[in-house]
Amino acid sequence: MVDFRRDLHMYPELSHHEVDTPKKVADFLTDLGLDVRTEVGSRGVVGTLKGGKPGKTVALRADFDALPIQDAKDVPYKSRIDGVMHACGHDIHTSGLLHVAKVLSENKAELPGTIVFIHQFAEEVIPGGAKFMIEDGCMDGVDAVFGAHVSSNNPLGTVGYREGPVMANGDTFEITIQGRGGHAASPHLTVDPLAIGGQLMSSLQQIVSRQTDPLKSAVVTVASFNSGDSFNVIPDSATLKGTVRTFQPEVRDHVQARIESITKSTCEGFGATATVDYVRGYPAVVNDPAETARYRRVAETLFGADHVYEMAPMMGMEDFAYYLKEAPGSFAWVGGAMPDESDIYPHHHPNFDVQEAAMLDIGKLFIATVLDYMSEDAS
Amino acid sequence: MVDFRRDLHMYPELSHHEVDTPKKVADFLTDLGLDVRTEVGSRGVVGTLKGGKPGKTVALRADFDALPIQDAKDVPYKSRIDGVMHACGHDIHTSGLLHVAKVLSENKAELPGTIVFIHQFAEEVIPGGAKFMIEDGCMDGVDAVFGAHVSSNNPLGTVGYREGPVMANGDTFEITIQGRGGHAASPHLTVDPLAIGGQLMSSLQQIVSRQTDPLKSAVVTVASFNSGDSFNVIPDSATLKGTVRTFQPEVRDHVQARIESITKSTCEGFGATATVDYVRGYPAVVNDPAETARYRRVAETLFGADHVYEMAPMMGMEDFAYYLKEAPGSFAWVGGAMPDESDIYPHHHPNFDVQEAAMLDIGKLFIATVLDYMSEDAS
Amino acid sequence: MVDFRRDLHMYPELSHHEVDTPKKVADFLTDLGLDVRTEVGSRGVVGTLKGGKPGKTVALRADFDALPIQDAKDVPYKSRIDGVMHACGHDIHTSGLLHVAKVLSENKAELPGTIVFIHQFAEEVIPGGAKFMIEDGCMDGVDAVFGAHVSSNNPLGTVGYREGPVMANGDTFEITIQGRGGHAASPHLTVDPLAIGGQLMSSLQQIVSRQTDPLKSAVVTVASFNSGDSFNVIPDSATLKGTVRTFQPEVRDHVQARIESITKSTCEGFGATATVDYVRGYPAVVNDPAETARYRRVAETLFGADHVYEMAPMMGMEDFAYYLKEAPGSFAWVGGAMPDESDIYPHHHPNFDVQEAAMLDIGKLFIATVLDYMSEDAS
Amino acid sequence: MVDFRRDLHMYPELSHHEVDTPKKVADFLTDLGLDVRTEVGSRGVVGTLKGGKPGKTVALRADFDALPIQDAKDVPYKSRIDGVMHACGHDIHTSGLLHVAKVLSENKAELPGTIVFIHQFAEEVIPGGAKFMIEDGCMDGVDAVFGAHVSSNNPLGTVGYREGPVMANGDTFEITIQGRGGHAASPHLTVDPLAIGGQLMSSLQQIVSRQTDPLKSAVVTVASFNSGDSFNVIPDSATLKGTVRTFQPEVRDHVQARIESITKSTCEGFGATATVDYVRGYPAVVNDPAETARYRRVAETLFGADHVYEMAPMMGMEDFAYYLKEAPGSFAWVGGAMPDESDIYPHHHPNFDVQEAAMLDIGKLFIATVLDYMSEDAS
Repeated sequence: MVDFRRDLHMYPELSHHEVDTPKKVADFLTDLGLDVRTEVGSRGVVGTLKGGKPGKTVALRADFDALPIQDAKDVPYKSRIDGVMHACGHDIHTSGLLHVAKVLSENKAELPGTIVFIHQFAEEVIPGGAKFMIEDGCMDGVDAVFGAHVSSNNPLGTVGYREGPVMANGDTFEITIQGRGGHAASPHLTVDPLAIGGQLMSSLQQIVSRQTDPLKSAVVTVASFNSGDSFNVIPDSATLKGTVRTFQPEVRDHVQARIESITKSTCEGFGATATVDYVRGYPAVVNDPAETARYRRVAETLFGADHVYEMAPMMGMEDFAYYLKEAPGSFAWVGGAMPDESDIYPHHHPNFDVQEAAMLDIGKLFIATVLDYMSEDAS
Repeated sequence: MVDFRRDLHMYPELSHHEVDTPKKVADFLTDLGLDVRTEVGSRGVVGTLKGGKPGKTVALRADFDALPIQDAKDVPYKSRIDGVMHACGHDIHTSGLLHVAKVLSENKAELPGTIVFIHQFAEEVIPGGAKFMIEDGCMDGVDAVFGAHVSSNNPLGTVGYREGPVMANGDTFEITIQGRGGHAASPHLTVDPLAIGGQLMSSLQQIVSRQTDPLKSAVVTVASFNSGDSFNVIPDSATLKGTVRTFQPEVRDHVQARIESITKSTCEGFGATATVDYVRGYPAVVNDPAETARYRRVAETLFGADHVYEMAPMMGMEDFAYYLKEAPGSFAWVGGAMPDESDIYPHHHPNFDVQEAAMLDIGKLFIATVLDYMSEDAS
Repeated sequence: MVDFRRDLHMYPELSHHEVDTPKKVADFLTDLGLDVRTEVGSRGVVGTLKGGKPGKTVALRADFDALPIQDAKDVPYKSRIDGVMHACGHDIHTSGLLHVAKVLSENKAELPGTIVFIHQFAEEVIPGGAKFMIEDGCMDGVDAVFGAHVSSNNPLGTVGYREGPVMANGDTFEITIQGRGGHAASPHLTVDPLAIGGQLMSSLQQIVSRQTDPLKSAVVTVASFNSGDSFNVIPDSATLKGTVRTFQPEVRDHVQARIESITKSTCEGFGATATVDYVRGYPAVVNDPAETARYRRVAETLFGADHVYEMAPMMGMEDFAYYLKEAPGSFAWVGGAMPDESDIYPHHHPNFDVQEAAMLDIGKLFIATVLDYMSEDAS
Repeated sequence: MVDFRRDLHMYPELSHHEVDTPKKVADFLTDLGLDVRTEVGSRGVVGTLKGGKPGKTVALRADFDALPIQDAKDVPYKSRIDGVMHACGHDIHTSGLLHVAKVLSENKAELPGTIVFIHQFAEEVIPGGAKFMIEDGCMDGVDAVFGAHVSSNNPLGTVGYREGPVMANGDTFEITIQGRGGHAASPHLTVDPLAIGGQLMSSLQQIVSRQTDPLKSAVVTVASFNSGDSFNVIPDSATLKGTVRTFQPEVRDHVQARIESITKSTCEGFGATATVDYVRGYPAVVNDPAETARYRRVAETLFGADHVYEMAPMMGMEDFAYYLKEAPGSFAWVGGAMPDESDIYPHHHPNFDVQEAAMLDIGKLFIATVLDYMSEDAS
């Protein structure tokens, strides 16, 4: 398992450009005797393990794409690919899940049900691979789905769970304010997109501060504003780009509607026009209460109740969200922090690394959860 | 003349409540043998002096209302009426004009034309008396009209003139933002008229800063904002009141339109509604170039060129503006500053006073201007 | 119990003005043979019931003040006091707790510990009675404390629990912007507190929208803004009043600091000065995890697991918060919704009422919890 | 004169890069027998014509740099230099002034005084050539100075004059807001320079709308705002660039101070820091009243009173301003509009052109003014 992970780590591949990685995964699963489909949703791999006894179908998912980051670690398994790196632990996920497939396939005869191993491409970008793999049938017939993410911040041997929304809806927007440019000394002959844009940014604050339930979370960030390049020419237009993060669909709808309304009205009031290009990204990851309780219970048995904690929701995104729209399930965080605190770096950092033993923990959690689910069904 | 002025000063009467003052004026004019109409436009007095020779008709105007201010001066002629005071010099204007009537009526036979003495009520408030007196015919047949205002800041023996707009259009507006109140801890269940009102005040600044020709003058002042009276109840609505000052009709139209547009759009963008009650007050006082040149020429002859200056336009209002819409003419400022600088107070101040000799100067300016006008006509 | 409640309901007394109510409570407790202290913290009543067996000390708390609201119900027990009403259910709390005292005093001999009955005055206003009663010793020697609030929205027979912060920190602030007034036509001679106040309201939005963790709750509401009363006089100053709601102490500190910083800087930038009078009100009600688990377990036994729910935190305030700073404990919501939905009104509404059977439920919950606590201690 | 102008027009040279143009000018003046200094202030040329009679010294100024604009006209004398063009008429000014030198040098003996011909480089950029030429002595001993600009909008044969400020102070500013970047989903961990910048742009409006005398002109334009280039990364900083236009030095000082104060305070209030780099450009062109009256009188004699008008002040800039700080004088506009209205384009337009007869008018105006000045002195 360690060798496999280090191989992936040394030869990472960017989202939507995975070629060798899915091949390695498919070969491994094929060698185990699973029923393997490749090029699922374009670059995904799905292995199916049919147990010896009748039962339900459970899916387990791991992602295998890397990031456009230059590896800065000084380790033997450092990335050999310039500017590309597994800086989020997807190599850990993939190796861990393959290990699960190995263990379970060895006990295939006793298995009261079917397990679907979803090896997903392109989790780091929008649109991600989940949606395409689902459209290509990877969740057909699946009764429950589980995922896990290694964490570089949480200690080895810990599991974080939470029911309900745990990772956010992530949308983007691009606003173009169309005014009318002119000489900076004659503002009255222009429709000044800069002054209007300043006022708009100010007005947009009220969506979060006044128009969203304070007990619910929402972020509206304008992350770029660009207009003009000189001291004395008022430009014709201004462009604002940003992102929206929410957990509840109704909050998401509300924020989108408010951005559109405030932008349109503010610009009209000043004599300008505006377009809002609002693009919905990943939906929120919403964990099923019953399956999350199972995950927790299983984790407490494996790691001890004091190593299992309710985690806070995160404003980040995960396209595991799409699987949870197809079947109940849960997504958990498994600790993998480096033993020496000075070696701990956040995800997406050039020095990111985790303990490889986290693969084992993910594996144990997956296996025990699947068996718990199937045994409950059988009883 | 001094006795008459001091009597007026001791017994001032508020705008639209003038009873004794017009009676005193009418009696004085009647005693001079003029043709006198009372209750013109309700409380105005108009005396007509027909000269012994044929000619044009020139109107001279003085106003006679006082202000709701407590006289704080320590002089024998201090106001005897509690809380009412001639704090703007209208008593000087009235006495000065009556003196003009006296002098000219004594030389009636030689006068080549007709003089209309307009003694106006209610100049200090909107609506003022000018409009009503004109509707009641006081300007019928008038060929030119002149007015003058004493100034507590300019030295005795000086005259200020300016052609074109000299005093501003003065309008008022009242904006009501209709939101939806509620508990301060649940802003998302309300449409918060305070937060919207704050944003609106901010947006309205651009009318002057961005949307008006920097070479033209405009003021948009929100002078009151009132909403809510507690710490924890968001009210239903907010009320903003203010004034607009401009000189040019097209700037006035533009500012009004922008206030209405920005207010409506800003409130709509946040889900509120708004009403804008925009009331046009006095128009700008626009002095006729030719008659202003005459005024200047006459003043330079009387007081010396170095005592006659081009004054800056003022953002204040005067309903003399209405007479100038009926006939060409001009409005000037005549100095009356107290000799000791420590006695100089601005108009509308409880300690306001001017030198009574200013009455003589106003009288001289009026008489010489009328004769100049008539002699030019006669030639 | 019903008679007692209806008597309280007919003769409500305002916060800090309770005279007859504490007397009735004290008489009732004295009749039961408890050790009774009156005028605790000024108007509170504390009864102590020492059980026949040794053990820990548990406090139970009910509040007894009413609100300045005109009772609009048409019932025989309608308020007899004009403009004063038990519109929040404190009469229910008080009667329920007295009932608990009665039952437990009848079983005094078997009781393995001591029970402190805290009958609190003035819960509806800041500062409330809890702080004063604690300063006067009502929590001395107390090991655990429990409270409950009837709810007009939740059905009879239900209990809502939640560990951690359940009701918010509630602070108030009053900002005075000191500018310099003047004529509306000459804004440049003034320091306009209205324009500055508008900008300040706009800037304050960023505290919630940009400067607070989106996963934590904060409300900053300006609930009143008052400045000026005319169309054309810019006033000297503007006053903004509002409230802040938060759950975590560090968020509370942060928001207060940001309000002070932004206000001071914004006003200084425009040449004005500002004072911020920030008054900390009730802290957050933070339920102890273990005692909340007990409350929940007891409630599930009494009412069934499907009638016990985890409630959402509320942005409202309760001065029960102070007791929880002295000893671990928990605060729960007990359903009392009227059977006919058209009779259900929110708390603080003139038509507010609840089913009197809720008193019994509060009583049962209190008794069972106390006995659970003591039996655990004894074991 | 036409040939000379067309040669300049075909071979325009950019500001501070003039090589051949000053050489041509110097050769022309030398040929006339004037005392010629080259490389004055780096690239300027000054010719001195000492008259045969004693008298005062009068300077006349023309500028000779071109603009980085691609000539789009279809005429034989179209620019031969790619991307460079005399699009403001400086070729006309230069040729006109050389013609004046020619005429006056032919009548040198009769001339009661000295004439200084200032041929200035680099008028179109900041810093312009005037300052350097003055520092290099071109105004030493000069008693009065006159300049004129051709206008593509005003008809041939007209002259515009105005006493006092006629062209604006023109300054630039660059504001850098230093915040702290971070992930768009965690604004609370950042100091968001975009949200702060929006608020700053809004606050800056009050400098013009509230803090400047409405009877005086000021423009504060933010002409560019650039920060961020992605949807989900909050950048560290934002940069705002803009210009300020004013006429009076005290208004200029005030606006600069307000920009610095508001920027600093606004950013500090939000936890950011700011630098303001305010660069003073050309001062206002302030025409001397007496010399402007002379210019007007002379122009009325030459072109008729109905072809001479008081022009409105302009928010644009001219470094003729510097000469007027050394000696009294005046700057006028001389009409040169193309006869066919469809050929009239604004200055700095790729199709800009004027009638060459305007050179003659400038020449006549200069010659008559100089003689008027000298004859007055002589008398």
